[in-house]
Amino acid sequence: MKKLINDPKNAVNEQLQGLAAAHPELHLNMNPRYVCRKNIPDGKVAIISGGGSGHAPLHCGYVGYGMLDGACPGEVFTSPTPDQIYECAKKVHRGAGVLFLVKNYTGDVLNFETAAELCSMDGIQVQCILIDDDVAVKGGGHTAGRRGVGVTVFAEKIGGAAAQAGYNLEECADLCRRVNVNGRSMGVALSSCIVPEIGSPTFLLDHDEIEIGIGIHGEPGVERIPMAHVDELVEILVEHIFSDPEYVRVVREMNLASGQWEDVQLVSEPFTDSDEFIVLVNGMGGTPLGELYGVYRKLASMCDERGVRIKRNLVGTYISSLEMQGFSISMLRADDEMVKFWDARVVTPGFCTPECTSEIAADEEKNAD
Amino acid sequence: MKKLINDPKNAVNEQLQGLAAAHPELHLNMNPRYVCRKNIPDGKVAIISGGGSGHAPLHCGYVGYGMLDGACPGEVFTSPTPDQIYECAKKVHRGAGVLFLVKNYTGDVLNFETAAELCSMDGIQVQCILIDDDVAVKGGGHTAGRRGVGVTVFAEKIGGAAAQAGYNLEECADLCRRVNVNGRSMGVALSSCIVPEIGSPTFLLDHDEIEIGIGIHGEPGVERIPMAHVDELVEILVEHIFSDPEYVRVVREMNLASGQWEDVQLVSEPFTDSDEFIVLVNGMGGTPLGELYGVYRKLASMCDERGVRIKRNLVGTYISSLEMQGFSISMLRADDEMVKFWDARVVTPGFCTPECTSEIAADEEKNAD
Repeated sequence: MKKLINDPKNAVNEQLQGLAAAHPELHLNMNPRYVCRKNIPDGKVAIISGGGSGHAPLHCGYVGYGMLDGACPGEVFTSPTPDQIYECAKKVHRGAGVLFLVKNYTGDVLNFETAAELCSMDGIQVQCILIDDDVAVKGGGHTAGRRGVGVTVFAEKIGGAAAQAGYNLEECADLCRRVNVNGRSMGVALSSCIVPEIGSPTFLLDHDEIEIGIGIHGEPGVERIPMAHVDELVEILVEHIFSDPEYVRVVREMNLASGQWEDVQLVSEPFTDSDEFIVLVNGMGGTPLGELYGVYRKLASMCDERGVRIKRNLVGTYISSLEMQGFSISMLRADDEMVKFWDARVVTPGFCTPECTSEIAADEEKNAD
Repeated sequence: MKKLINDPKNAVNEQLQGLAAAHPELHLNMNPRYVCRKNIPDGKVAIISGGGSGHAPLHCGYVGYGMLDGACPGEVFTSPTPDQIYECAKKVHRGAGVLFLVKNYTGDVLNFETAAELCSMDGIQVQCILIDDDVAVKGGGHTAGRRGVGVTVFAEKIGGAAAQAGYNLEECADLCRRVNVNGRSMGVALSSCIVPEIGSPTFLLDHDEIEIGIGIHGEPGVERIPMAHVDELVEILVEHIFSDPEYVRVVREMNLASGQWEDVQLVSEPFTDSDEFIVLVNGMGGTPLGELYGVYRKLASMCDERGVRIKRNLVGTYISSLEMQGFSISMLRADDEMVKFWDARVVTPGFCTPECTSEIAADEEKNAD
C-alpha cells in the first residue's frame, strides 16, 4: 500500500490539520471532530453535511462562503457520530435553524437524526434533507434505498448559496429537496481503492474488468464487464440515467411546525429530452482530468443528439473514493432558481468561483471573431 | 491499460474537444492544434504556453481571463510543433506583442524559438521566458539544465494577471523571469504512468519503492528509496529545495530592441528562512486530494519551525503526469507584486477564483469567535 500518510490511524486527523493550515478561515475542532466557518452572519440558516472521509473535497472542502457552514468527517468510509454533528450544529447555529444534508447510508441517516433530536432538545430547529441519487440501486419504498452520491455536490452548492442569500430554513430545505428529486447519478470503477486502516483493496477487478454502477465506497454495482472505450461507458451510464423510471420512496423529515419526525413521500420523475440540466462529470480520485474531459465530450455529444440542453457543467474530482480510478455522471434537471444559485459566488477550498463566472464566460464568447 | 479513452491516437484531440464543449468561451483550433480565448482586448500583451499533453489542467486548462491567451498542446509528453505556436500567436496577438512561457525541455525550447522567429518575420514582437525550476537536476551553464515543472503554474497565473492588468511585453517578461529565478520545485513518484500510445509503464517501481526527484514525464530522479511516511518524504523534498545552492545558467532571450537572440545569464539565489513564499502542493494525477493536504500539513509545520512565512498556498492537481501517483512541492519567493497578481481574479477551466478570495478569507478569519 503506497499512500502519502504516516500512521493510518491518524491519517484523517492529519489531513484535516493540513486543510486547516492551508485555510485559516476555517475552524477545525478535534474533539469531537468537525470543520466550520469562523465567520457566519447572524440570522443566516446554517448548513451542515458530513459522512465518511475519503471523498475529498467533499465535505470539508466545501465549507466556506456560499456553501457549507460546517462539515463532520467520520473515519474513512465511516459515518460521523451524533456528537460530532450536534456540537458542530451548536457552533454554527445563528438563530435561523440548521439544515442537515445527509447522504443516504444507514449510519449517516441514523446519526444525523440523533443529532437533530439533540438539537431540538436545545431549541435549535433542524431539518434533514436526504440525498439518494444513485440509479445503480433500484430499491425504493421503505428499503434502505438509493445511495447518496454526486447530487450531494449540487445540493451543497445550491442550498449553500440560497442560505447565503437569506433564504429561511424551510426555503433552503425545499430547494435542496427539489435538487435531490431532480438529480440522478451513476458511476463506473476501473480499479478499487484501499482503505488505509484495512490495507488491502476493497474489491478486486481483473486487469481488463470494470464495475458498472459502483458506489463511492466500492459497493457492488449492476454488472462487471470487460474494459471498454470511454464512449461506450458514457453510453451505458447515460442510458441508465435517462431510462430510469419514476422513483418513489418514503423518507423521514422533521415537521418544522410540530418538531416531530414524519414520513414524507418523494417522487423523482424520469428525465425527458426536453429537460435542461446542470451536469457533473466526476473523477473518483485516481482518474486524470484529461480523461474526464474525454467523458464530457461524449456526454455533450449524446445530449446534443437527443436535443437535451446542458445549461452548466462541472468537470473534475468533486466527490472521490480515495485513489479509485473511474468516473461518475450526475445530472440535475435545473430550473432558473437552481442555476442562479449554481452561478453564485462561492469561496471554499474545493469549489471557488467569482459570482460573474458565467458572465465573463459569455462575454469571452460573444466577442469572438 | 485501463484508460478512459477510445483510440489512443485520438485521445488528445478528443479530450480537447471535451474541454471546448465544456467551455464555449474557448476556441479550439484543430489544424494546427491550439486553444485560445475568444475575446482578448486590443492592446493587451498575449501570453502563450504549451508543451506535451498529459499534464492537465496545464496548459489548456489555464486559458482564460487573467491567465493564458493561448495554449499549444503536443501529443502526450511530446513538444508542440512550431506551426502550432506560430498560428496561435498570430491568432491571439493584439498589437502589444506575445510572451511565450516555455518549460525547459529541448524540443519545447527549439520549437518555441522557431515560432518566435516566424512571428518576428511577420512583425509580431515576441519574448521567450524559460521556466527551469526542478532542483532534482543539478546541471547549469550551457547544459540542457533544469526541467520546467510547477513554477510554470506560478508564472502563468502571475504573468497572466499582469498582462490582464495592462503590463507591457517587457514588464510581463521581467515579472515572469523574476518568478522563474525565485521558484524551486521537486517531486516524488509512487507509481509510473502509461502513455496511451505506448501502452506500458514509462518506468517500473517495486511495490515498496518510490522515486525521489521524478520529472513530470517520468524522467529519472535523484534516487530510489523504499516507501516512507509522508512526513519523511516532505522533509526530503524541503531539504533539497532549501539546501539548493545558487543556480546560474545561460538562456536565450529575445533582445526586444534589436529583435535578435542574445544569451542572458540568470541567477537563482538560494532560499533563506527569512524569505516569504507562495507554495504549491501538487498532485501528479493519481493521488487523492486528502493525501495532498497531509503533505501540506508537514510542509506548513516545517516552514513554521524554520520561521519561514507562507503567504499563500495552493493544494491540488495543477501540473499532472497522467495517472501517476505522487506529488511535488513548488515554492516561489514572492514579493508584494507577485502576491497581488496571484490574488487577482482568474476565470479558466483549471484555475478560477474571485478577485477577493483572500479578502473574503481574511474576513471569515477575523470575525472568529
